[in-house]
Amino acid sequence: MRFSTACVVCTAAIVGQASAQTFQRLGACPTLGCVFPPDQSDFLPGQWFDIRLETHAPQNGSEVVPGYLTPDENFTFTLAKDGQQKDCKNAASYFKIAEPAIERWNFTWYEDLFAQAAKTPSMVKVAAKAYRKVALYEPGNYIATLTYGNGSVTQANWTVRDTKISQKAKNVIMFIGDGMTTNMITAARLIAHQSVNGKYQSKMAMDSFPVLGHQMTHSIDSFITDSANSATALYTGHKSSVNALGVYADSSPNPLDDPKIQSIGELFHEVRGGGVGIVSTAFIADATPGALTAHTRNRGQYGNVVDSFLNGIKNYTWPEFDGPDVLFGGGAEQFIPSSKSFQGLDYYQQFRNKGYNVVQNNTALKNASNTERTLGIFSVSNMAKWLDRNVYKNNTQIPKTAPDGSSAAATDQPGLKEMTLKAIDILHKRNPDKGFFLMSEAASIDKMMHVLDYDRALGELLELDDTIKATKKHLEEIGELENTLIIVTADHGHGFDVTGGVDTKYMDAQTSDRKKRDAVGTYEQSGLSQYMVANRSAPIGSDQNLVYSAGVDFPVNWDPRYTLQSGLATFPDHRENYRVHKKGPRIPALNVTGFSSNDFYVNYIDAVSGFLVNGTLPVSADQGVHSLTDVPVFAQGPCQSAFGGVYNNVDIFYNIATCLRLQRNKAPK
Amino acid sequence: MRFSTACVVCTAAIVGQASAQTFQRLGACPTLGCVFPPDQSDFLPGQWFDIRLETHAPQNGSEVVPGYLTPDENFTFTLAKDGQQKDCKNAASYFKIAEPAIERWNFTWYEDLFAQAAKTPSMVKVAAKAYRKVALYEPGNYIATLTYGNGSVTQANWTVRDTKISQKAKNVIMFIGDGMTTNMITAARLIAHQSVNGKYQSKMAMDSFPVLGHQMTHSIDSFITDSANSATALYTGHKSSVNALGVYADSSPNPLDDPKIQSIGELFHEVRGGGVGIVSTAFIADATPGALTAHTRNRGQYGNVVDSFLNGIKNYTWPEFDGPDVLFGGGAEQFIPSSKSFQGLDYYQQFRNKGYNVVQNNTALKNASNTERTLGIFSVSNMAKWLDRNVYKNNTQIPKTAPDGSSAAATDQPGLKEMTLKAIDILHKRNPDKGFFLMSEAASIDKMMHVLDYDRALGELLELDDTIKATKKHLEEIGELENTLIIVTADHGHGFDVTGGVDTKYMDAQTSDRKKRDAVGTYEQSGLSQYMVANRSAPIGSDQNLVYSAGVDFPVNWDPRYTLQSGLATFPDHRENYRVHKKGPRIPALNVTGFSSNDFYVNYIDAVSGFLVNGTLPVSADQGVHSLTDVPVFAQGPCQSAFGGVYNNVDIFYNIATCLRLQRNKAPK
Repeated sequence: MRFSTACVVCTAAIVGQASAQTFQRLGACPTLGCVFPPDQSDFLPGQWFDIRLETHAPQNGSEVVPGYLTPDENFTFTLAKDGQQKDCKNAASYFKIAEPAIERWNFTWYEDLFAQAAKTPSMVKVAAKAYRKVALYEPGNYIATLTYGNGSVTQANWTVRDTKISQKAKNVIMFIGDGMTTNMITAARLIAHQSVNGKYQSKMAMDSFPVLGHQMTHSIDSFITDSANSATALYTGHKSSVNALGVYADSSPNPLDDPKIQSIGELFHEVRGGGVGIVSTAFIADATPGALTAHTRNRGQYGNVVDSFLNGIKNYTWPEFDGPDVLFGGGAEQFIPSSKSFQGLDYYQQFRNKGYNVVQNNTALKNASNTERTLGIFSVSNMAKWLDRNVYKNNTQIPKTAPDGSSAAATDQPGLKEMTLKAIDILHKRNPDKGFFLMSEAASIDKMMHVLDYDRALGELLELDDTIKATKKHLEEIGELENTLIIVTADHGHGFDVTGGVDTKYMDAQTSDRKKRDAVGTYEQSGLSQYMVANRSAPIGSDQNLVYSAGVDFPVNWDPRYTLQSGLATFPDHRENYRVHKKGPRIPALNVTGFSSNDFYVNYIDAVSGFLVNGTLPVSADQGVHSLTDVPVFAQGPCQSAFGGVYNNVDIFYNIATCLRLQRNKAPK
Repeated sequence: MRFSTACVVCTAAIVGQASAQTFQRLGACPTLGCVFPPDQSDFLPGQWFDIRLETHAPQNGSEVVPGYLTPDENFTFTLAKDGQQKDCKNAASYFKIAEPAIERWNFTWYEDLFAQAAKTPSMVKVAAKAYRKVALYEPGNYIATLTYGNGSVTQANWTVRDTKISQKAKNVIMFIGDGMTTNMITAARLIAHQSVNGKYQSKMAMDSFPVLGHQMTHSIDSFITDSANSATALYTGHKSSVNALGVYADSSPNPLDDPKIQSIGELFHEVRGGGVGIVSTAFIADATPGALTAHTRNRGQYGNVVDSFLNGIKNYTWPEFDGPDVLFGGGAEQFIPSSKSFQGLDYYQQFRNKGYNVVQNNTALKNASNTERTLGIFSVSNMAKWLDRNVYKNNTQIPKTAPDGSSAAATDQPGLKEMTLKAIDILHKRNPDKGFFLMSEAASIDKMMHVLDYDRALGELLELDDTIKATKKHLEEIGELENTLIIVTADHGHGFDVTGGVDTKYMDAQTSDRKKRDAVGTYEQSGLSQYMVANRSAPIGSDQNLVYSAGVDFPVNWDPRYTLQSGLATFPDHRENYRVHKKGPRIPALNVTGFSSNDFYVNYIDAVSGFLVNGTLPVSADQGVHSLTDVPVFAQGPCQSAFGGVYNNVDIFYNIATCLRLQRNKAPK
């Protein structure tokens, strides 16, 4: 999709030749003149964003241009609506802001693995500018043109979307199963729902949505994504680079100065004035919740992320954000005063100072008022997994996990369901007319897939499904079901699938790895799911004989003789016996003490009755990784039909934002 | 879904206790009295089917019932509409057919892997009956009750579906990507379509369908399926056991006497009288094409399968079928007179005798008349892969592959596109009013995934996509696009995904396995797809510099420096270097000569620059296996909206059959 000619005509071009598309000097900038947002970017009308321009002068390496060792500081940047090039203006005039000052820095990068191994980096000098907090209001195509270095041109085609949606949602609930794929949903259904002669007697809540879609999850500059830039795509409609939250990644050393784009949370607050809710089973500064308000090149700036929840962005021109109505999750480290909290402050107190009610366990959560803004932090680090809270309960007795920073265990943790239902109550009570935007994340599907703990991952997925079911019921009870657009999706995949059944008794009885593999039964020998067959001679409430309330669907037996052969397409060294890990989340690989700290081998105490599988990842990897696959989208409510079919992850943002009427066709007063 | 009480009341029950759900005495028969079709079966009104009843008397093992060593021959079997139990009749009266004679046989089975390893089978004596070619016409629920052994009861709840669909299709084209998953489609898109800053500049044909669904693929008695019983489910609306084509699997020694169910091909012929087309890149007797007309417990009866294409079922009471209009594929072995053809006959001649035009290469196919029924067999075994026909062309120079049985190579083979477009021309010409049902299978997506040949598998998938695109265009040209329901789906999955990019140059330069693994780049280091970047210094037409016609989307470079890290969730021993296999389809594992014939180790000449990965399957497995995952369904045309959402594979049959108006609410005269 290339538009008509830019308003400055290309003469002699100085274009860097990228020698490798994998190691890149800067993602989305293949030439020596960079424009962010780059070519092919889409925008919501009225969405605030920053512009970053950079000119690069390589000092050595494959891209060095003889005679061009100082980056051009006299670059110009113009903008015009496509078809109106004669009206093209420079950006400062176009947006009616002051011309920013030049910034200068250097950076280094490795051109490929050989250079990295030999430690021979390439160095680049940079001249840059940033235009802060601008917006485009009129739908259509725009040409943004950077001219530098004696006539080289970088042209970016920008599209301000005119997504017409006739329906309107009052509320939006966005459920994110982190790392969740269709393959995983199929496996979760198998272990938690009874099937008779191939006919399931009950369904997953996800199976019952009226609209199904697929979203493409890739990054702007790599085909695999992480949770940071995929959340950025879902929440802003702009793809970015791995590890980036709410910004395009520029090359500056400061992670906070990268060009920002306004998120759905910020837009909902600014345009609608309704309540924002953020719920996750992760530490709350993690990427998927964090990307709703944070803007940083580096997802690891956890203190900054938490500060952005409360205060928005203060160090740059940006629309104000004064805190969500609800913020629930783990990650007490960023709240207890320490080197891990922002500026060493007590963030429980910071939130209290701004009027928040603060709760730290499930009991307090249940009893909390529905009229106050509420902070709920229920553990240090990631919250406990469903399997440990409900089946292997000793695993929640871990000292020093309590969110108050004491040596106590965090034993009274809510699950995703409790947090989500309470969030809805508070958001609805506080915003009966303006409605709410709630993001609720089952974070540990991904985290447990990373450590090859398939049972725990599927437990988290089933908890998400149970939460969705309870949410729909609750929305109906409070009369908000028809008003609410419910989206269930993932951010990216893991290469998980199930390929057979395993006779664990037979495997235990074999003494060699090659003979242990005979325990795997494929095709007709995969058999039937034993996860719904209770062992009646086991005590009720034990992991082989569980009982649930009506309508709550989880395995009654987590440790049957015949288990699932689960696996990942790519993995670290590990041993595999296909059995549930009873002592807590799995640790498949360990550093061998005394050797390099990046040399992982199979963990000698994990899955000891199993057989060895050597890994397909670098030996510095102790976990599985994300995969490429398109992921499912389930939609119900106003605007649901927009979510059917196959599309890019950014399209989800435009459909939600437009359904909420967050687009603005002229500048606010 | 359990209905009201059966018309014979249960008294004392003799019920076999199944000791393991994986090794089963007989699938869908957990007790000692078996009814096929079993409990939870659905039916199309008017669909012909057989009933099989069996009583089992275990002679030894865990299920033996003292005093019941002879199976009851005096069992009774009654049928009633649910709610009308007082009208219950025995089956012979109900269907107005003669009471069948008792049949008797024995069979043995292993109760688990220990018994199999120790060769200690359990034996069962059987008494049985079969009611042949019956049908139910009135929608609703039925109770079928087998009473045996002094008051034991097996009750089967049958549902004759009343699927109301208002639209009607004249033609149906069902594309099956064998083994194709969403994960594979994502990877195919990545290597064949240009993306700029995350925005694809062109789409897969599959991406453009208006309706997306997911189907559950599991067997009736195991959670993993093969192509035989999954094709049976898609074509008949009845799930079955692995290896079964068009029948439920009973326990009789004769594979041809198992209870049959009428397929969509047979129904279309009988009810509509239009033309049936069967196209596949597999040997044509393979399961996916075969299940359209064959009825056998054993998919390996290739001669019988081909005879059923031509003659239908002759050895039992069954509706007649006198041949498809079009039958295109590979598998000359079943046509050349030999021990591999049915009764040693020349099946080219058998088809000619019934008026078929016979073609054996692409030139003859293109020039063939459109008014004649046509048999096209283009090679022995499976047809050549797209990658070999178009890129590594030497690989098609294989002696003795010509379909005439000579020592020649089959060099002039059509692809799926040529076969499909020609099939449409013949079907439409011959059936301008009554329309046609065409099944077109990209068989080698699955076959190449089985041998871990990811490049070839994705090439087959891209060929399917190209075929779909050309098909839509052609249907529009002949004025049939609006009249045609087009479905694209799979039969089952493989656990495939892509998790990173690989620097093959770096891998080649490393000398240890653990160091070779450092060549894998994940997340941001997955980089961008190099498959759409031609190597301009390579000759045009070589595997690094390919050129295609406008609108034809395949990789321009199959052998770039940076490749995809592809993998399967479960695999045999193999070595992996993530490079295209230039000498033909991959052989990842070999029997070690001199040892047991079921002891596979990594193939010493495959992927020699890579690192070893030991397998997770029994060592008797030299290939990957099928996986559990739900698979995508793309639909366009009349009745398309019925295919959205999440459902069982059998639902596809009911929707297609009803859209074609193949249901009959009263017996034909």
